[in-house]
Order: sequence, then structure tokens, then C-alpha cells
Amino acid sequence: MQYTNTPIVSLVGAGPGAIDLITIRGLRAIRKADAILYDALIDKSLLDEAPANIPKIYVGKRCGKHYAKQEEINSLLVDYALNYGHVVRLKGGDPFVFGRASEEIAHVESFGIPVTVIPGVSSAIAVPANQGIPLTQMGMASSFWVMTATKRDGSFSKDLILASKSSATMVILMGVRKFLAIANEISKYRGGLTPVALIQNGTLHHESCSVDTLANAESLFKSVDISQPGIIVVGHVASEHPSFFEDEIQRVLRSAM
Amino acid sequence: MQYTNTPIVSLVGAGPGAIDLITIRGLRAIRKADAILYDALIDKSLLDEAPANIPKIYVGKRCGKHYAKQEEINSLLVDYALNYGHVVRLKGGDPFVFGRASEEIAHVESFGIPVTVIPGVSSAIAVPANQGIPLTQMGMASSFWVMTATKRDGSFSKDLILASKSSATMVILMGVRKFLAIANEISKYRGGLTPVALIQNGTLHHESCSVDTLANAESLFKSVDISQPGIIVVGHVASEHPSFFEDEIQRVLRSAM
Ligand SMILES: C[S@@+](CC[C@H](N)C(=O)[O-])C[C@H]1O[C@@H](n2cnc3c(N)ncnc32)[C@H](O)[C@@H]1O
Ligand SMILES: C[S@@+](CC[C@H](N)C(=O)[O-])C[C@H]1O[C@@H](n2cnc3c(N)ncnc32)[C@H](O)[C@@H]1O
Repeated sequence: MQYTNTPIVSLVGAGPGAIDLITIRGLRAIRKADAILYDALIDKSLLDEAPANIPKIYVGKRCGKHYAKQEEINSLLVDYALNYGHVVRLKGGDPFVFGRASEEIAHVESFGIPVTVIPGVSSAIAVPANQGIPLTQMGMASSFWVMTATKRDGSFSKDLILASKSSATMVILMGVRKFLAIANEISKYRGGLTPVALIQNGTLHHESCSVDTLANAESLFKSVDISQPGIIVVGHVASEHPSFFEDEIQRVLRSAM
Repeated sequence: MQYTNTPIVSLVGAGPGAIDLITIRGLRAIRKADAILYDALIDKSLLDEAPANIPKIYVGKRCGKHYAKQEEINSLLVDYALNYGHVVRLKGGDPFVFGRASEEIAHVESFGIPVTVIPGVSSAIAVPANQGIPLTQMGMASSFWVMTATKRDGSFSKDLILASKSSATMVILMGVRKFLAIANEISKYRGGLTPVALIQNGTLHHESCSVDTLANAESLFKSVDISQPGIIVVGHVASEHPSFFEDEIQRVLRSAM
């Protein structure tokens, strides 16, 4: 019989990737977990912080391939809470940023099981930051808009167009595969000279970042591995990246030769 | 003589308020600091994590009252780095979200002193999360826009109007004093029935949250202490707050009596 621990679920934001970008509170929850259900973009060594003999279940989905359906995850959360006690649901970044946390909370609470949320460093902010790209900057960008580019049916969202017309820094998640179409669409409104950055595997050892203008999206995209998750940043702040002007200078030199 | 340590500056995001919402990496930097320059919204007990005998200098600004001007902070960073070595510049939330980090980095680097950035949990995301308000939610809100409401001259920013016309969740920082004008402006585009939340001192023991519709902004605002920092969330996600429907039900009951 395992019904000795009180069932409770903690939704924990693991941060953007690097293991030491989790919060103190998040790490404490992992250390006190009776079971862990974790996502794709999680550094596996975080699991070593948990007690050795508890179940650690992978429930990730990546790029449309759902290893587990959302409904299955919801059920697993309840099952493990009832059978083991304190379930830590470990999610990449912050649980409430494109994390479907609300659905999990609603389902778990409907069984009378309490849920706590432990915020995490979202990749939306930290991944650009780690490349020296600020999302706001005096005189350059006074707001930022975090979005996905396309709706479920694949068409561009209305917000993508509105954002393109605004002066906000655009931060686009889950858009790597559609990078060229996105860059093309935005450049209609912001112009081809607008800087863009595509950062993949941010804060991890295999982090990569490409910066260029929207007009040069095609050449930027050549070096990109579309199987890896990435964040697209559009706006003048992307020119803060150290290699932006280097690239520009090289291009000017090349075209002058 | 103190010129023994190599000068270096770490811009560290301290998180939204609660001491255990700093990252592991941020805490380690504090423990290895030779000097700390810290902002207003920082939990002072974080400073106890630093070595006891190092200088800990308050350089906060609050609500337009600048205890130290940005130029003075820039100079202090260089002075302390040259005289003490590893300076930790401790900032609320994430350094790159309305944190003027770029200005500090440019100034410090112009003296040949290296700068590292340690991302933090931004209040923009964590403060709503801590109240159970997700910024994105399937079928309810597919993007969020983080902004200040007004420009330096006090007028509404163009982005505020565009955001009001979009379906993005609006997250407004530094707007408590102008709450009524902001609510009034947004309701022109989104309608008075749009839910709004005002959260103050998020993740701290004196945290407070008021939720209502934009049309009821005036009654919501009565309970607000405008001297405290706060975050305004506008959009359907604010109705996810547990007290939203309670309030609604009470109002319906009252109006029926
Ligand atoms: C389902 S969303 C979850 C976001 C997460 N809740 C957060 O706050 O960071 C997954 C997307 O986040 C972005 N992402 C997450 N971690 C990343 C990383 N380390 N580097 C680049 N992009 C990342 C990618 O756009 C990826 O497709
Ligand atoms: C100059 S901005 C700095 C934001 C910070 N860099 C961040 O990422 O959280 C200060 C504003 O952040 C918001 N803020 C910061 N901490 C907060 C908290 N604990 N509760 C509510 N609002 C907060 C308020 O709108 C405040 O006026």
C-alpha cells in the first residue's frame, strides 16, 4: 500500500535549459518529490537531484510528436499523486508560458488534489538575454510581445500581423520550421532591414545564435538545424548582438569586392 | 591596496521578490561577490548570503524618485569593479526587462571590464503566475505583450492602443498610479467586460491582488495602495483568478437585492 503520503502536485518551472537556472524553490521541490513527471526540454541531470528511488516519468512532446497526449498527462498526474504523494511536474521555462499549465491544474484540482505553481525563468526572456539581446531598451524598444506565429491550422495569427505593425520586440516561440515564411510576412510591415535573431538550445552547451536582417533570412536559415527548438527575436534589439555588425561589415566588404 | 581581484561585473536577476525565487546561478554569484550594488525591489535577506564584510550599496530608484541617477550607477559599477573585483549588480526580476541593463553593460565594457548576465524570473510572468493567472492559455490567449503604459512625457504609448486592439494578454508594468486612465483607455477597444487584475508586492508576504472588469476599475482601485509596485494584467486570463467569479456572483446578488 502506498497511500501514505498526502497527494499534492507542484508545477515547477525548470528554467530555459542550463541546470543552474532553476530557482531555489524549484530545486527544493525536486528534492522533496515522491514522483516526477518531466518534459522534453529538461536537463536530465536535474533528475539526479531527486531522491534516487522515486519514479521519474518522461511525458515530453516535441515538434508536434506527442509522446504522451495532454489528456494522458493529466491522468498520470492524478494517478501518481494518489499513489505516491508529492508529484513534481517539471516543465521547461515557466509553467504558464505556452505550458498548458491551466489544463493540468483544472484536471488535478477537479480530483480535490491541491496544486502549487513554482515560477521559472522563461526561455522567452532568458534565451535572448543569454545572447546579450535585451527585450526592452531605452530609446530602442519599449515593449515586447511573446507569441507563436501560427494558429493550429498553420495560418498566421492575427496577432503576428498586429505585432509586425507595432514597435514591440517580437519574441516568437515554436516557429523554427516556419522561420522563412515568418520573416517574409513580418518584413512586409517592418521592412527588410529589421534585425532578426534565431537562437537555438539557449543556455545549453550547444547553444547557437544567428543574427541578420529579415531580408537575409534565407542565408541565415541555411545554418539552422530545424530539429532543434529555437526562439526568434525580431526588432532593433537584435542588432545588440555582437555578431550583428560584424556580419554587416563582412557583407559590405564582400559586395565591394 | 585592493587591486588584487580581477574586475568583473555580473548583472544578476534576483527574481520577482520572494528570496527563494532567485536562480541557483544567481545565488552562487552573490556568495562569490566582492561588492554588491542592489536595487529597490530586492529582498534584503538575499544580502545575508553574500560574504559579511563586502560593501553592499543601495542604488535603488522608486516611482520616479531617483536615489541614484543611472549615470551614477554606471560609474559606481566601474569604481567598485576596479577597487574590489567581482561586482554583483542585483536587479529585480530579470535584468533585461525594463532594467536598463544595456546601458550599464555598455558603460562597464567601455572600460574593458567584462560583464556577464544571469537571467532571473521576471515579475512580468511570475507575479501573475503566483496568483494563478496564466499569460497564455489554449483557446483563451495565445500571446502576451509586456509593456509600460505611458511614454516619458506621460502620454499613452502607441503600443498600448495596438495591444488593446489585439487579443494578446496585456501585462503592464509601472502603471499603478495611472491605473484608472489605463483601464479607461483599454476599455474603449476591448470593452468594459474585459477582466483586469492588479497585483502588488507579488510573491512577497504582503502580496495583494484585485480582480474585476475594466468597467469596475474605479471600485477595484479603492483598495489599492499606490505607493506599492504593481502589475496590471488585462485579458480573459485574469478571470482565471479564483476571486473573479466570486466577485461577479456577489455583485449579481447585490444588484438583485
Ligand atoms: C511549448 S514552449 C514552452 C515554453 C516554456 N514554458 C518557457 O517558458 O520557456 C516550447 C518552446 O520554447 C522555446 N524554447 C524553450 N527552451 C528553449 C531553449 N533552451 N532555447 C531555445 N528555445 C527554447 C522554443 O521556441 C520551444 O519550441
Ligand atoms: C523597473 S521595472 C523592473 C522589472 C524587472 N526587471 C522584472 O523583470 O521584474 C519595475 C516594475 O516591475 C513590476 N514589479 C516588480 N516586482 C514586482 C512585484 N513583486 N510585484 C508587483 N510588481 C512588481 C512593477 O510594475 C514595477 O513598477
